[in-house]
Amino acid sequence: MSLTNATPLEVAQAARLGSRKLAVLSTEDRNAALTAIHKALADGKDQVLAANAKDLEAANKAAESGTLSQSLVKRLDLGKKGKYEDMLQGILDVRELEDPTNKTTARTLLDDNLTLSRITCPIGVLLIIFEARPEVIANISALAIKSGNAAILKGGKESSHSFAAIASIISSALSTTAVPSNCLQLVQTHDVIADLLKLDEYIDLCIPRGGNKLVRMVKDTTTIPVLGHADGICCTYLCSDYPADKATKVIVDAKVSYPAGCNALEQLLVDSSALTTVLPSVASVLLAKGVSLRCDAPSLAALKENLDPHSAALLQPATDADFTTEFLDLILAIKTVSSVEEAISHINAHSSHHTDAILTLSPTVAKPFLAAVDSSSVYWNTSTRMADGQRYGFGTEVGISTNKIHSRGPVGLEGLTIYKWVLVGDAQASADYGDSGRKWKHERLDADGEEWVARNEEEREALRTLRAGN
Amino acid sequence: MSLTNATPLEVAQAARLGSRKLAVLSTEDRNAALTAIHKALADGKDQVLAANAKDLEAANKAAESGTLSQSLVKRLDLGKKGKYEDMLQGILDVRELEDPTNKTTARTLLDDNLTLSRITCPIGVLLIIFEARPEVIANISALAIKSGNAAILKGGKESSHSFAAIASIISSALSTTAVPSNCLQLVQTHDVIADLLKLDEYIDLCIPRGGNKLVRMVKDTTTIPVLGHADGICCTYLCSDYPADKATKVIVDAKVSYPAGCNALEQLLVDSSALTTVLPSVASVLLAKGVSLRCDAPSLAALKENLDPHSAALLQPATDADFTTEFLDLILAIKTVSSVEEAISHINAHSSHHTDAILTLSPTVAKPFLAAVDSSSVYWNTSTRMADGQRYGFGTEVGISTNKIHSRGPVGLEGLTIYKWVLVGDAQASADYGDSGRKWKHERLDADGEEWVARNEEEREALRTLRAGN
Repeated sequence: MSLTNATPLEVAQAARLGSRKLAVLSTEDRNAALTAIHKALADGKDQVLAANAKDLEAANKAAESGTLSQSLVKRLDLGKKGKYEDMLQGILDVRELEDPTNKTTARTLLDDNLTLSRITCPIGVLLIIFEARPEVIANISALAIKSGNAAILKGGKESSHSFAAIASIISSALSTTAVPSNCLQLVQTHDVIADLLKLDEYIDLCIPRGGNKLVRMVKDTTTIPVLGHADGICCTYLCSDYPADKATKVIVDAKVSYPAGCNALEQLLVDSSALTTVLPSVASVLLAKGVSLRCDAPSLAALKENLDPHSAALLQPATDADFTTEFLDLILAIKTVSSVEEAISHINAHSSHHTDAILTLSPTVAKPFLAAVDSSSVYWNTSTRMADGQRYGFGTEVGISTNKIHSRGPVGLEGLTIYKWVLVGDAQASADYGDSGRKWKHERLDADGEEWVARNEEEREALRTLRAGN
Repeated sequence: MSLTNATPLEVAQAARLGSRKLAVLSTEDRNAALTAIHKALADGKDQVLAANAKDLEAANKAAESGTLSQSLVKRLDLGKKGKYEDMLQGILDVRELEDPTNKTTARTLLDDNLTLSRITCPIGVLLIIFEARPEVIANISALAIKSGNAAILKGGKESSHSFAAIASIISSALSTTAVPSNCLQLVQTHDVIADLLKLDEYIDLCIPRGGNKLVRMVKDTTTIPVLGHADGICCTYLCSDYPADKATKVIVDAKVSYPAGCNALEQLLVDSSALTTVLPSVASVLLAKGVSLRCDAPSLAALKENLDPHSAALLQPATDADFTTEFLDLILAIKTVSSVEEAISHINAHSSHHTDAILTLSPTVAKPFLAAVDSSSVYWNTSTRMADGQRYGFGTEVGISTNKIHSRGPVGLEGLTIYKWVLVGDAQASADYGDSGRKWKHERLDADGEEWVARNEEEREALRTLRAGN
């Protein structure tokens, strides 16, 4: 891990070289590196917290003078009860996951003694740009090493002391392992992001971890593929046949359980037939929980008539902007629709294609909705807050993607891999086939994710020799 | 299919709208559209060939005046024996492939009555930019419709009459089918590419089909993901243990069978121990086939000593540029390496990461090579010319990708799909889990690619109603 004043180009080239070595390390070698990092960070807790205290001091001053938000100061604090231990446990959790590389995911017999295999492998070099949270450096380092990818990490200036301390500890720890230290590059110099984002020859994937503004800036300025999402504008369509108690439970969870989450509900679409039946029950509980309801004309009228006067007084009329805004707050926009078709059209035009849901008992309404809504996650009768890698059972989460290629929705370790095609033959020539008479067999063979390379000790030894070289 | 003077923005928005309808059409409806296109193009052969003749006339004049290459004129000619019929058959071949969408590729029971499914679906809107070959329009239209994607097609000006004729026929044919005609947008206006490449809000994937210069221009100027490869610099590493007859067969096929192909061999790496044993036999056959050999100093010396004087006189010394050039011609650069490690390093630094091969009988040499070479296809004992979607058994080929995300190597229909996560529950709330006491089950269920939506007639009918609406 480099803390030098290398240029962005030097950083990227070093990461690329490191990635070549890391890509052929065994599962055991990569896991051993995670064990070493975990131990070093556990041993170095005082050192990291001392550095973190410096960042916090500067951040508190900035907050007092009004140039930094209090929520950012909170995110900086590694000393908060359990936070450092969670960071350490996260490294071990990643270590325990299945190795996502070196797996055979498809096999075809093209001809006798000519077998094609699709083998998962690391992507190469990741560029991770993140904002305040200093624990991300440990999390991302663990994910990168586990998946065999080199990573360039660019942190925010508010956490520079914490980053330097964690980086220095990880660097020392790596030097005792088989993982080359140039696989993790920490960049702290100012104003290098623009230069890094140009280096698509050396960097394969960019993952911005931060707010809307950061993600948009990255997406708009680089030809490197970007994994992530800018907005989380999630919608739920409530049908009249859905029981009020269930609707209330799901919608309250989606809006209230963590309003700052990208999977929080921002727009409730209500079928016109549900305005005076299910909606009032749901709305009264939301209002009691302190949620501001911004209602279109029909829903406003229906609620004013069907809620007690005290609650009804809290209702607000919606503006057009409320249907294109990510509130990240206890605010919910409510729109009336007359059919599932209208709900689908509204969602495809106004949601951020993150997570959208329908609440209905009818499969003939739900299934077309699930098929036609063009979002990374589409739900039937549950809360949009379910969109999360841990909840999906991935063990960890790289991020949530609204991309239309590679990985979509919550992304686990698999999203940090790609594949290569390995073809093993016995001197077959392409010109033998087709007009020359030989026919392709194209027989699909089993491929149950078995390990591809290094199946016996001799081959493992050869691979070790290769890893030791340059 | 639009031939109007719509702006690039209008074109992209229309394609996006069309894509929403196309995405929920049944397999049968999309196949029926392919049948209709096939019939219309078969019936309209004379009309297309008359238009094509106009393009050819202009191209021949341009070729005579030296502003157009003869090979481009050849690629324009749809009247060449069998070419039109191949184009027609290609549409039927695509129709017969398995529908790549609406398949369940993973299922997890998150909790009782809470099942997560990963369902394949179309990407959305494709932008295809192609050069001379007018038959590509039929091929791409078929691939787009089969995979449920809308497509914006931008052809080269040399084939404008042919494109207009084919487009008009396809457009009429589509109007009799369930596929909305705005799903295929033909763009012929000049200088719209730059504008289209900015519309990442409406276009999900760009596929440039043409030469190196086109692909580089596209990759360098858009934030839309690009599927393709700029160069095809393929290498083969020849070890001394590999029999001369087999080596000759594989290397001659890789270099000579189609030198203009992106998978043709451009660089032969020879182990120093094979310089005077296997290499001379291979080289003499290559020279006899008219291949210019551009040799580094050790291979030049070895061949001069071991070939007959007449053949040896044809050898040329290699320059550095020969190891970064895609010749697309009967030229082969030869470099001597002292180990598999050196071969791997050279390939990772000099190949275009398309397809690279090793020729050896030793698994302990081959396996580390296959693991460490960072290319989309890596081969052991066969010809780089095998890199092709038809040969891999995909039935068709969208292109060959050297990307590190989404699709790598020859890309079949699957490369035009992504997935969505569908979660079906019964009013579960996220806040019930974790600290609140409920535990995730995360039980993996079978998911054998079964069809997701429209499993019974009632649901099919609901989907049909949806398709008919706006």
